[in-house]
Formats: sequence, structure tokens, C-alpha cells
Amino acid sequence: MVIDSNFFMNLALREAWKYQGLTYPNPAVGCCIVGSNNELIAVEAHQKAGSPHAEIMALQSAYFKLTNNSKILELTSSIDIHNFLLNYHNNCFKNISLYTTLEPCSHIGKTPSCASLICVLGIKKVFVGFNDINVEASGGNDILKKSGVDVKTLLLEKKSQDLIKPFNIWNQDKFIFFKWAQRLNGTTDDGTVSSAHSRKNVHAMRDICDLLVIGGNTVRTDRPTLDSRLVNGKAPDILIISRTKEFDKSIPLFNIENRKVFIEDNFLKLDNYKNIMIEGSSKMFELSKDIVDYFLCYLAPNMAGKSGFEKVEEKFDILNIDQEDQDIIMWMKREI
Amino acid sequence: MVIDSNFFMNLALREAWKYQGLTYPNPAVGCCIVGSNNELIAVEAHQKAGSPHAEIMALQSAYFKLTNNSKILELTSSIDIHNFLLNYHNNCFKNISLYTTLEPCSHIGKTPSCASLICVLGIKKVFVGFNDINVEASGGNDILKKSGVDVKTLLLEKKSQDLIKPFNIWNQDKFIFFKWAQRLNGTTDDGTVSSAHSRKNVHAMRDICDLLVIGGNTVRTDRPTLDSRLVNGKAPDILIISRTKEFDKSIPLFNIENRKVFIEDNFLKLDNYKNIMIEGSSKMFELSKDIVDYFLCYLAPNMAGKSGFEKVEEKFDILNIDQEDQDIIMWMKREI
Repeated sequence: MVIDSNFFMNLALREAWKYQGLTYPNPAVGCCIVGSNNELIAVEAHQKAGSPHAEIMALQSAYFKLTNNSKILELTSSIDIHNFLLNYHNNCFKNISLYTTLEPCSHIGKTPSCASLICVLGIKKVFVGFNDINVEASGGNDILKKSGVDVKTLLLEKKSQDLIKPFNIWNQDKFIFFKWAQRLNGTTDDGTVSSAHSRKNVHAMRDICDLLVIGGNTVRTDRPTLDSRLVNGKAPDILIISRTKEFDKSIPLFNIENRKVFIEDNFLKLDNYKNIMIEGSSKMFELSKDIVDYFLCYLAPNMAGKSGFEKVEEKFDILNIDQEDQDIIMWMKREI
Repeated sequence: MVIDSNFFMNLALREAWKYQGLTYPNPAVGCCIVGSNNELIAVEAHQKAGSPHAEIMALQSAYFKLTNNSKILELTSSIDIHNFLLNYHNNCFKNISLYTTLEPCSHIGKTPSCASLICVLGIKKVFVGFNDINVEASGGNDILKKSGVDVKTLLLEKKSQDLIKPFNIWNQDKFIFFKWAQRLNGTTDDGTVSSAHSRKNVHAMRDICDLLVIGGNTVRTDRPTLDSRLVNGKAPDILIISRTKEFDKSIPLFNIENRKVFIEDNFLKLDNYKNIMIEGSSKMFELSKDIVDYFLCYLAPNMAGKSGFEKVEEKFDILNIDQEDQDIIMWMKREI
């Protein structure tokens, strides 16, 4: 296996995909810090809005590795890590390279931008996967170049673009992803399909999404709550797709405060939301696939169940696969 | 993500799994070379019998990285690489650590053993995933320790054991793996399922296995050749599982020289072979699963086809997943 810049960018991409769906309204971004002998020093990702950017996470982790000063690990806020690095970097980063899947931000708020921090720390080489098209935050590459940083852009451009696409979509419109859990034999029925880890991951996404779409039959059969109790998160608004508006209102999902529940026979309500998760199986897949941007499948390695996905003229491009707690987590898009 | 010794051993494991099924009668082994600052220098695996061991592949690759002397890259035989390293190492390895999924061999044949080479090269630290239980080659750890090498054994022991298990099985008995190709919806019918890369990978395994088992109905319907023409390899012996012995002998598989074809209603013939691949789908799976050691699934990300795996009371442990040319390649064993 060749250990080159693609290898490091791929590591950054894989780390970032672990948090896809959880960073809204921020992008999923990954970052590697690599030393002068091509030694891998840190791999981190942006985990959720309000948490530090991927570059800050990776620089924090790298600082500890390079200096053995564990004080930086006690810091959690971006501003604290920024300030610590600015005060105590002591040129420890001067020979490192930074790989980031997205152009470092130029946005100055409570903290200096990631781009200017990189300049101040004396980092000489930055590899960028995809350029930021967000007006407020873009321009990071220019800041770096003006400070004499060697910037190589568009490394693994296509993969980096796939990673950032949800962010670019919800900046302009709404991002819709279809989530399902299935077994290896394609079945989706007959009780719990996915692992405890996968279910917790789904709850974390429900906590972040602002609308959850589900089929009427599923509501009637499963009588779900559709909250995010496994991560102590919020219950998103619900759109039930159903021809009839009649539902037993004692079904738990109807009895949660501060949640709107819509019952419609179409997807028009989606226009009022930005980050939308559709949960379902084959019927909802058929109904919604033409408006879906990305597909997220939790694949459990067993062959129980009876029915599930039947023949669909659909081919996917796999964007990322990961394995957690036995299930395979697959992000996909339709093959173009 | 923590960059620690587990991280490096996992990289070695993942690289080794790419060649699982192809190394017979040798084990699948992976090896990482890591520098004094924890920099990753090389990741390589044993690729096939007759090729250099994983440690030699990794040391070759690392030598080039450390010295920039590309002469070593022109060498392909184990003895040449061994001799080159012995003559020209110039202590370039003295600060590196070596991670290997299997205890380095102590076997001295045409070349010195990997264990003694490691000692001569002055490597100070070796991490070993699983100890070699093969009498002829074991004892490598002792050789290392006697030379003052710091040996840490049983790092990711369970994963390393899963990787080496086919080798340990065929040393004592016969190793049987069940291979199938399916789509995301569990279907296995209706034409070609897997990608060109996956089909080539299967042919490489046919070239290496000594018996291929297949169902009578598949032979009648698909009229296959069951050779390994995509890799210019050999055609393995065939066992057709069928109640009747009547077959149209113009089916291509019957007309290949130097191949035995058996038609039986049982698996007794397997006792005469060591490395056995069963190809099939749900029916053959049901027939054979109790004698199968490992399961190998090529999963194509689309939902065409009509029928495939139905309900089976079988849970798997995923041993490794990889993605190549769109298909997911999954090695699994039955959950204990």
C-alpha cells in the first residue's frame, strides 16, 4: 500500500464520514496532521455544530503529541484551543503538513479563522480536498497563499465533494437523506434489525435533523415515538405520508411537546425544512427516491426476517462504508 | 482517532485481509513499519505463496522510504531482498518498530528466517498479533527476545487469530469457505451480480483453491466453465452436488484438461482436499453451512434481481469489510 498524500486525505475523509448527518448546519470535515517524515500525528473530524472545526481538533491532538503538554487536552471550546495554540505553539508545527477535506475557513468570529491560525502557527504545507463555496467562510486558501503557505488544492476532489455535498445542498435548498436498516438478505421486517450502536446513531441524527418523514403504515404498525431518547436529544417534527388522516392519537409520537406532526399525502411540507431524514423501507423508498440526495443503510449481518426490498431499478455509488458494533454503515448516492 | 499501536496493527490486518484466500498454503499476514516518531513508513501483506513474507515486503518498501535507494524496488524474490537488506541496511532500521499480525517465522530455508533478519537489521521493537502454532516456523518470538528485541505479543489477538485461522485449519484439516455474490436487496439471480474486479478476485481464488463445490442446478442453468481465465490461472477440481448424475457433458466445465469432476450427493470428497471454495446461493448455503469455516460475500450496491437469500437462522460476525470497484467484500464467520 502506498503511503502518500492520497492515503492521508483518505484517512481524513473516512474520519469525517463518521459524523455525516451529525454536523448540521456545519459541514462534515476531516483533518490529518502529518509530520516532516510523513508520520501521521493526528486524524480528527468536526463532530457537531458548536464543537471545534476539524483543523482545531486535529491541531489540539497534534499539539499534545508533539509537546507532551496535556493541558491542551483539557480544553473543549474552540476559542480556548485557539488561544492556547496562539500563546503556546512555540513553533512546534513548523515542519508539519495539514490535510483537510475542505478549504480552511476564513471566517473571523469569536476566534480567528482556521486559515489565519494555520498561518500564525507557521504551518508550511496544506492539502485541501475541496474548495469552500460558502461565501462567508471561503477565501481560506488565499489567506494561506498570501502568507507563503504551500497550498495544494483539489486532492481527492471528487471524494471530498461527495463529503461536503449535504452542506452545499442545505445552504441553497434542503438536504434529504433516506435511512433504512436491513439485514444481509434485504429484509426489513420482523422486529429490531440493527445493533444498539446503530440505533443510537440514528437517534443522534434525529436530534440533529429538523424534519423526520415516515410512512403511515409504519406509524400504525410500529406505534413509534420517533424521538432521540437514546442520546437525550430532541424530538424532530414529523411528516407522516398517508392517504388518510385518521390515526390513533395515543400512538406515542403524537404526544410529545414542542413537536409538530403533519399528516399529508405528498412531500410539499419538506420545503419548510433544511435537513430532512426519511425513515422507511421499500414502500417509502419507492415513494421518495426521486427527491432523495443521499441514502444511508445500516446493514445487519444476519438473514432473519421475511420481506424487504424487492426489485428496484436503482444502482448506487457507495460513498463510504464503516463498521461499528457489527453493523455496516453505508452512505450512498444514486449512480449517475 | 487515536494513533496508537492498535491503529497500526489494524492497518496491517486490513492489508492482509485483501489477500485472504490467495495465500494458500501460506497464511495471510500483514506488516507495518513505523518510525521512532510513530510515523507510518510502510504497510504491506503477504500476497501469495512463493512471494516474500509480509515482513520482507514491508521492509523492502520501508528501506526505499528511509534511504531513497530505489534499487531494492527492482527485486522481487525473497532471497534477493533478504540479501540486499543484509548487505546494505546500514542501520537504517535501528529506530523503527515492526508490527506483524503473525509471529515472524523462524524457518531457515533458502533465506534466513524473518526473525533472524529482524535481529540482524537492529530492529528494537516488534509487535506481534498472534503466535505461530506451526511447528516448523514457530519460535520467532524467542529468537527476537534472545537478541534483545522488545517483543510485545498478542496485540489485537482475536482479530489476528481470525486472520490466521484458515491457515491453522488447513494445517490440521481442510479449510472450507462459502462464496456468494448478492445485491443489496439479497438477490442472487438474474444475470451477473458483481463487478469486474470482484469476478477477477473470485477467479484468483479459484486458481488457488484445490476443490470448487457447486450445485447441480447451477451447473444445468448457467452452464459454467468454472476456471480462472480472468487471471490466466488453473481450473480447480469440481464437486457437483446433485442427486442425479445426469448432466449434459457439453457444459464447458466438463471439457477442461487436467481437471477432475465429481458428481455426488454428499460432501465426503472434501476430505481429499485442503482449501475448498463452495460457490452458490441460498440452496447451497443451506446444504453446506454447517461444514463451512468462513463466508465470503461480494455485495453489489443495487437492487435488481428477483430471488435470493430467504430467512435463515444465521448470524454472522464480520471479520473484514473492504470496498473495491464499487462492490463490498465481506469476510464473515458464524456468530458463536
